[in-house]
Amino acid sequence: MYEMLAELIGTMVLIIFGAGVVGGNVLKYTKSEGMGWVGISIGWGLAVALGVYVSGTVSDGHINPAVTLGFAAIGDFPWSQVPFYIVGQTVGAFVGAVIIYFHYLPHWKATDDPGAKLGTFATDPAIKHYPSNFLSEVIGTAMLLFALLGIGANTFTDGLEPISTGLLIVAIGLSLGGTTGYAINPARDFGPRLAHFVLPIHGKGSSDWKYAWIPVFGPIVGAVLGAVLYVLLLG
Amino acid sequence: MYEMLAELIGTMVLIIFGAGVVGGNVLKYTKSEGMGWVGISIGWGLAVALGVYVSGTVSDGHINPAVTLGFAAIGDFPWSQVPFYIVGQTVGAFVGAVIIYFHYLPHWKATDDPGAKLGTFATDPAIKHYPSNFLSEVIGTAMLLFALLGIGANTFTDGLEPISTGLLIVAIGLSLGGTTGYAINPARDFGPRLAHFVLPIHGKGSSDWKYAWIPVFGPIVGAVLGAVLYVLLLG
Amino acid sequence: MYEMLAELIGTMVLIIFGAGVVGGNVLKYTKSEGMGWVGISIGWGLAVALGVYVSGTVSDGHINPAVTLGFAAIGDFPWSQVPFYIVGQTVGAFVGAVIIYFHYLPHWKATDDPGAKLGTFATDPAIKHYPSNFLSEVIGTAMLLFALLGIGANTFTDGLEPISTGLLIVAIGLSLGGTTGYAINPARDFGPRLAHFVLPIHGKGSSDWKYAWIPVFGPIVGAVLGAVLYVLLLG
Amino acid sequence: MYEMLAELIGTMVLIIFGAGVVGGNVLKYTKSEGMGWVGISIGWGLAVALGVYVSGTVSDGHINPAVTLGFAAIGDFPWSQVPFYIVGQTVGAFVGAVIIYFHYLPHWKATDDPGAKLGTFATDPAIKHYPSNFLSEVIGTAMLLFALLGIGANTFTDGLEPISTGLLIVAIGLSLGGTTGYAINPARDFGPRLAHFVLPIHGKGSSDWKYAWIPVFGPIVGAVLGAVLYVLLLG
Repeated sequence: MYEMLAELIGTMVLIIFGAGVVGGNVLKYTKSEGMGWVGISIGWGLAVALGVYVSGTVSDGHINPAVTLGFAAIGDFPWSQVPFYIVGQTVGAFVGAVIIYFHYLPHWKATDDPGAKLGTFATDPAIKHYPSNFLSEVIGTAMLLFALLGIGANTFTDGLEPISTGLLIVAIGLSLGGTTGYAINPARDFGPRLAHFVLPIHGKGSSDWKYAWIPVFGPIVGAVLGAVLYVLLLG
Repeated sequence: MYEMLAELIGTMVLIIFGAGVVGGNVLKYTKSEGMGWVGISIGWGLAVALGVYVSGTVSDGHINPAVTLGFAAIGDFPWSQVPFYIVGQTVGAFVGAVIIYFHYLPHWKATDDPGAKLGTFATDPAIKHYPSNFLSEVIGTAMLLFALLGIGANTFTDGLEPISTGLLIVAIGLSLGGTTGYAINPARDFGPRLAHFVLPIHGKGSSDWKYAWIPVFGPIVGAVLGAVLYVLLLG
Repeated sequence: MYEMLAELIGTMVLIIFGAGVVGGNVLKYTKSEGMGWVGISIGWGLAVALGVYVSGTVSDGHINPAVTLGFAAIGDFPWSQVPFYIVGQTVGAFVGAVIIYFHYLPHWKATDDPGAKLGTFATDPAIKHYPSNFLSEVIGTAMLLFALLGIGANTFTDGLEPISTGLLIVAIGLSLGGTTGYAINPARDFGPRLAHFVLPIHGKGSSDWKYAWIPVFGPIVGAVLGAVLYVLLLG
Repeated sequence: MYEMLAELIGTMVLIIFGAGVVGGNVLKYTKSEGMGWVGISIGWGLAVALGVYVSGTVSDGHINPAVTLGFAAIGDFPWSQVPFYIVGQTVGAFVGAVIIYFHYLPHWKATDDPGAKLGTFATDPAIKHYPSNFLSEVIGTAMLLFALLGIGANTFTDGLEPISTGLLIVAIGLSLGGTTGYAINPARDFGPRLAHFVLPIHGKGSSDWKYAWIPVFGPIVGAVLGAVLYVLLLG
């Protein structure tokens, strides 16, 4: 239960910083409006690093159901704990999104574009093409697990491993994120999308549930694939 | 007293680099004019890292009254030293702002916009809405304390912990700073605002004292909230 | 054989992230379109860091035939293994480029400019002037080997040496990459160029094989020069 | 003598990356043209980190006469070695600038603006006002020495101290560099300015020797001031 709480809190921190950086980029009249893709990628990388710093000493800092499933698939994590982790992660992502709603309170009305509002919470593809979008999420999350395991094979004596993990997320954002906005984490997309759906956001549009299965199942397939390939090739 | 001096110097270093990066972005004819939000966020992050490097071995590098109060609230810092720390931090922030005034000496006259001049010293909100602005400062500073304590729960053997702290500030800037300019530190806003008020800055406007209470009390409320929540949930 | 596989995988990871960041910058309608040179340089730096993280514990993470040859030239690596490393690196670069082709599947048709498509895979010079372009690749790769050996003379106890290596690549990109696009790695250019040649990329143009010898032989000459100079001067 | 050689090489590496990043930003038709101030600041920071990595194990990596004089002023470095260090640093800076001349060979003719050509080698102020420009160089270099000594008071067990130093240079660039282009190093300005003077650069203008004393004497005054203040206040 304590691990579940840590996952909840870590994923909440992840979404506060992650949804925060997107909102700061796309919502009207913020001081950070239009800061660009490099800023967004660094912001999400730091969001993961901080989520891992906060939860890592308790729960190892998965803060991502795909990571939990990927580790379970190769025997690095007990299946019995998987449901608790996923529940914690999803609730945490929802709570984080609610906090970001309050953080940008006067900016929802100031922003006309409903796409910018949804984009603060959930991902959408650059070019809508479901099989390609699914594949992009598979590739991005496979690289996440593959590289996480590669980083973990090195020895860390100082408290800086979360920064390596954060840099991996920066890399995925810069290099692979331009196609679908790199959910690479089912909770990161589903929790905030649900928050967008239930919150009284001024002038919001559709929560685009038709797309929502891709950033859930693409990352899961990718994570298992990446973890299994790592073990087969380098494990 | 020695710790107070270290806090004074650390906060002075913080403001030299912090006010320096804003001035370089907004004042006319600097080579760094218009460098953008990513540069500002990195600049403030490094400002904190350097302030902590300089003061940390003596005073633990709070360089922020909200941090001092947050630590005191959870019993991690003696209340008897709190006033000395806060005086040191506020004086240091004022001195740092005076140095930045001299650093940009020919640029004050070259810049027409009085808002850019005040912005070099103190924060102002993107959309003036006092309750929301207060809440934004609460959220930003709660995340600061929460993550500081989370980072501190990890073991650092090498002299790189100040860099982790700096990255946390980069994250707050990128992700939460776009609403109010993220004071998240009463001394960081009050000291330089006072310097703006007393210095003979060419063509300066109002020091906007009406807003000044928000970046003082918002961060204090947020810091105590963040520190207490951390102890309750993960301590 | 296991080291060869590690080099293959490390170089594949390098190209997935490296070609990925260029594609994200130049292909039409990606969310990262036009992110600029700083993003590209950071992306390639992280690509190398991750390639080294993944392969380093097995094969020392050369992921670059020029590095392998430079180390062999100064007796730091057995000549007998050189061919296996180079084959692994070149195959890995090809495989990585194929994965990037699938990652950006709907964007090839959306992009008109054949130069952007080739640029995602292989380098081309800013100003076509073969002797100068060759010299630029020599200088860039000489600095790579010289600084790699300089970094290696320091003692790393934590698992962060790959990040130092990545920062070196960021530096080469920012400071020396603007002339030829800094191949500084024969496999990085040849493997993806071959992939561009054989893949059914929509609306692709020439693979510009006339230029292809420069990013192969320039880096080799530079690497040997840089490694030998380091040993003579500081070894 | 060996230390002098290390200083020569370290400062050469500094200028190759430092002049390289400026040239990539201002010379015509480079791929990195107009990358902006954040890229330049990161580039110079990495330039210093790499110069220190290459020379640090031999000569402690001053690569800056102002650093050498500042350390000597507080008894941290023997005065008898000062001249050798300064000669090595100045020659190294000159050699590095010559290499950058060759690196950008076809770009000198492609660039019309003689200011961009000089700017690749030496600094010039944003607003010409000699007393203020001098003061800016004093402040920037005082912060360099003050923070270097503050960083050095921490314990580094891993080979990452050069990265802390590099981040300090990024901070000085972002926050204090916009006024004079932050020479903060007499060799960094004088050596490349001399190279600009003697090299057959196509369409070059004046080497502006009238300004050249400021980036030499400003940094020296600032370095001594910063080092002495650190010892008095925190030593």
